[in-house]
Amino acid sequence: MEISLKELAARVGGTLEGDATLPVRGVAGISEARSEDVTFLANPRFADWLPRTAAAAVIVGPDCPPTDRTVIRTRDPYEAFRRAVLLFYGNRRPVPPGVHPSAQLGADVALGADVAIGPQVVIGARSRIGDGTTIMPGAVIGEDVRIGRDCLVYPHVVIREETELGDGVILHAGAVIGDDGFGFLTRNAAHGKMPQVGRVIIESDVEIGSNSCIDRATLGVTRVRRGTRIDNLVQIGHNVDVGENAILCAQVGIAGSTKIGDRVTLGGQAGLVHYIEIGDDVQVGAQGGVTKSVPGGSQVSGYPAAPHQLAKRMYAALRRLPEALRELRRLGERVARLERETGDRPRSGDGE
Amino acid sequence: MEISLKELAARVGGTLEGDATLPVRGVAGISEARSEDVTFLANPRFADWLPRTAAAAVIVGPDCPPTDRTVIRTRDPYEAFRRAVLLFYGNRRPVPPGVHPSAQLGADVALGADVAIGPQVVIGARSRIGDGTTIMPGAVIGEDVRIGRDCLVYPHVVIREETELGDGVILHAGAVIGDDGFGFLTRNAAHGKMPQVGRVIIESDVEIGSNSCIDRATLGVTRVRRGTRIDNLVQIGHNVDVGENAILCAQVGIAGSTKIGDRVTLGGQAGLVHYIEIGDDVQVGAQGGVTKSVPGGSQVSGYPAAPHQLAKRMYAALRRLPEALRELRRLGERVARLERETGDRPRSGDGE
Amino acid sequence: MEISLKELAARVGGTLEGDATLPVRGVAGISEARSEDVTFLANPRFADWLPRTAAAAVIVGPDCPPTDRTVIRTRDPYEAFRRAVLLFYGNRRPVPPGVHPSAQLGADVALGADVAIGPQVVIGARSRIGDGTTIMPGAVIGEDVRIGRDCLVYPHVVIREETELGDGVILHAGAVIGDDGFGFLTRNAAHGKMPQVGRVIIESDVEIGSNSCIDRATLGVTRVRRGTRIDNLVQIGHNVDVGENAILCAQVGIAGSTKIGDRVTLGGQAGLVHYIEIGDDVQVGAQGGVTKSVPGGSQVSGYPAAPHQLAKRMYAALRRLPEALRELRRLGERVARLERETGDRPRSGDGE
Repeated sequence: MEISLKELAARVGGTLEGDATLPVRGVAGISEARSEDVTFLANPRFADWLPRTAAAAVIVGPDCPPTDRTVIRTRDPYEAFRRAVLLFYGNRRPVPPGVHPSAQLGADVALGADVAIGPQVVIGARSRIGDGTTIMPGAVIGEDVRIGRDCLVYPHVVIREETELGDGVILHAGAVIGDDGFGFLTRNAAHGKMPQVGRVIIESDVEIGSNSCIDRATLGVTRVRRGTRIDNLVQIGHNVDVGENAILCAQVGIAGSTKIGDRVTLGGQAGLVHYIEIGDDVQVGAQGGVTKSVPGGSQVSGYPAAPHQLAKRMYAALRRLPEALRELRRLGERVARLERETGDRPRSGDGE
Repeated sequence: MEISLKELAARVGGTLEGDATLPVRGVAGISEARSEDVTFLANPRFADWLPRTAAAAVIVGPDCPPTDRTVIRTRDPYEAFRRAVLLFYGNRRPVPPGVHPSAQLGADVALGADVAIGPQVVIGARSRIGDGTTIMPGAVIGEDVRIGRDCLVYPHVVIREETELGDGVILHAGAVIGDDGFGFLTRNAAHGKMPQVGRVIIESDVEIGSNSCIDRATLGVTRVRRGTRIDNLVQIGHNVDVGENAILCAQVGIAGSTKIGDRVTLGGQAGLVHYIEIGDDVQVGAQGGVTKSVPGGSQVSGYPAAPHQLAKRMYAALRRLPEALRELRRLGERVARLERETGDRPRSGDGE
Repeated sequence: MEISLKELAARVGGTLEGDATLPVRGVAGISEARSEDVTFLANPRFADWLPRTAAAAVIVGPDCPPTDRTVIRTRDPYEAFRRAVLLFYGNRRPVPPGVHPSAQLGADVALGADVAIGPQVVIGARSRIGDGTTIMPGAVIGEDVRIGRDCLVYPHVVIREETELGDGVILHAGAVIGDDGFGFLTRNAAHGKMPQVGRVIIESDVEIGSNSCIDRATLGVTRVRRGTRIDNLVQIGHNVDVGENAILCAQVGIAGSTKIGDRVTLGGQAGLVHYIEIGDDVQVGAQGGVTKSVPGGSQVSGYPAAPHQLAKRMYAALRRLPEALRELRRLGERVARLERETGDRPRSGDGE
């Protein structure tokens, strides 16, 4: 695709300063861009690249000083650049519409308009795939699954029976949606399997990373709400409820029945025990170990997770602890000397 | 499936109190049940749902007071409910018996009676699949693998060559059994690969979660013993030996050659270093970092893992540490004043 | 394969002491070896197995005392054993050369000499596979991918479009290379997806474990350099650069844009935040949480990661902290008594 700078500026909502006729064929980082790329400058620490970049034009913010480079000036250069990327690459679709002959579709599968089903895909009976959705090679979809419109299901995703996906959902390679929750009943040291007969609902505009797992409910529903982004290798237990527009970084683990509020951020490798409630807008630091409910708006980190400002002081103090213990011992010796010299005596019981 | 309450009570080992003729068609949680579901009440905190649930009947324990609702009274309501779930859903089999035409079987593969092989499955030469076992779409089984009776192998499971599975084993989607251990020999900063020529044995009634990995032994065997339940995204290194009826929660990692006893519980995200031994009945807390062997019957948690009661006191004390360091400094000032006023002098060396 | 001890000694670079004519058919651990196996003794704690092993011969080091067992004496018995293992098992190739008829190859795929493509493999248009490379069942390779010579791509690996692999690369089952980085732009609480249009380069002789994920760059390149070994379930974020001959143990997570030096070792479950730099030869302990850059040659551990010797003292001190807080309280009482008895008074403000 080729587009003039003039048209690009209009499409990303910016004002062109410079040669409007130059053609653009792609986007790139400011240090790697070539003469037919557009790039952007949102972070001042890359400012010295502005005169040096080979790019045809640079998307800049309102504060960027005048320059002899061709720029597209906009209120939000990062968002404008995101639009430029979508413009050039957003319509790439790795599988052509239609059903590949090697795909295996069960009875009464219903495909919407413009659906693309890649090679080696398996879809179980009675499942329904919405308009414009792409199912990539090797994905396996169980029976009675419902997938909305314009979803992207990457290779080797497994969607177990009865799962429901909204519109615009993206499932990355190897993600497993709706596998059994980890439920059993221990009697006489043996763990009898509790069949997991609930299901999973993934609401619209959710993205789930590669090799992440969302367990089906024991009974009822495990739910990820609208707009939430989940990174790779994340584990979400049975009956968990994740709110809207949350961010779950890589390798997070959430144990069963825990409830996560809206706009929550969970840092990488954070772990949450079962049956707790995380309020709206909570932020959990990377590797945080959350052992009880957290009220909305809080920031917590560390193990066990404490309010973030306290945690910072705790861990700073911990670094000084070896020296403090020596100081405590020396102080004890000084006090004992004072006691001897003033004729005071430790009460019986002191020092136990 | 439809069954009368009278028959259901008999099948789950309970006594019916109320209308024995009502039909039941499924099971559900007490708050979600509909008029043809059976539900259960095992946890007192749901007791106020008893008069309100729409369920046809409620499975209750011996302590539940008399009620005008129809109940099935039993010594162990959770176990009775588990049996009810198995009754309604336990025989669902997602792949019909037989071999799907798209499956690829190597030479001399031996299939037992009533085996079900789904679409796109690949089975290597000389592998043997026991009676009643189900291999779901896209699973890949290597050469010389032995799988017992009544196993469930979910989509996209990979079982590498020479692995051995007992009876009733469940492998969830994307699990990898028998991949190479992480072994190499470092000479002149380069890491020469040590071929991993051992194998994996999974004993009967073991369940392994989605996207978990069990590495084959460098030499010899990596083993998971009878009745153990392993959750999702768990890593088990080469030559590890996991005992019977253990519980490994999600994202646990066990490094090479470590030995885990019977009935051990490892909390989510716990990590164990290599070459240690965890005794029978040990419990490791979530995120625990176990750096040395743990005697049987202990409970440990934290990093590095300490006895659980000590760990609780440690982390409670850590929260008070910033204030304690201030107190220590103030105490030092008070002692210095006392020393000045009594004419005592710090010995040379104090305060260094 | 059968080989005489004489020839085996020559092939592994050792000197035979004993019966040179015995045939060897395999390798095994010293406690499990049978009469036609060769084994090795590198670790003194297995020395008492030397007279007892059933092996045909034992590879030993220069310090091993004379024995009536047949031995192959060598400067580096572990390396010699590694060569023996490679000799017996190194050429096993689980897929025969050629393209399985169930594989699906896109337009203009270029296959080198002696390439093996297994059942159900999917390869996208214009991808190139180097001589001697093996692609195992169910692997999915996107468009415009380049794979070098003599690579092993295990079942269900997913390699997304435009990824580049060097020679001798090993990708274990379920690994995902080149999936989207975790990038979005948050405006009004909604997280707009930032298309990830960079790619991944895996240099020669890199090994990546099962179900690990290497994200493509947002723009530019995510790179893993020559000779690095990565274990299972590892997460590497977008635009990360991992140096040469590094070791990343299982379940490690590296956030976006972080740079890892050469010969770095990251212990299991270690986590690194984004935008930091880890110098050459750094060692990070298992479960370490690295929150800032680490200079070359350092060893760090704990959360937040501290120099390893300090961390050891910190955690040893933490175990003594509950008692130290009690001691601090008692010391405060003794000082208060001294102050009363000497007529000294705490200054106002003390004890707050």
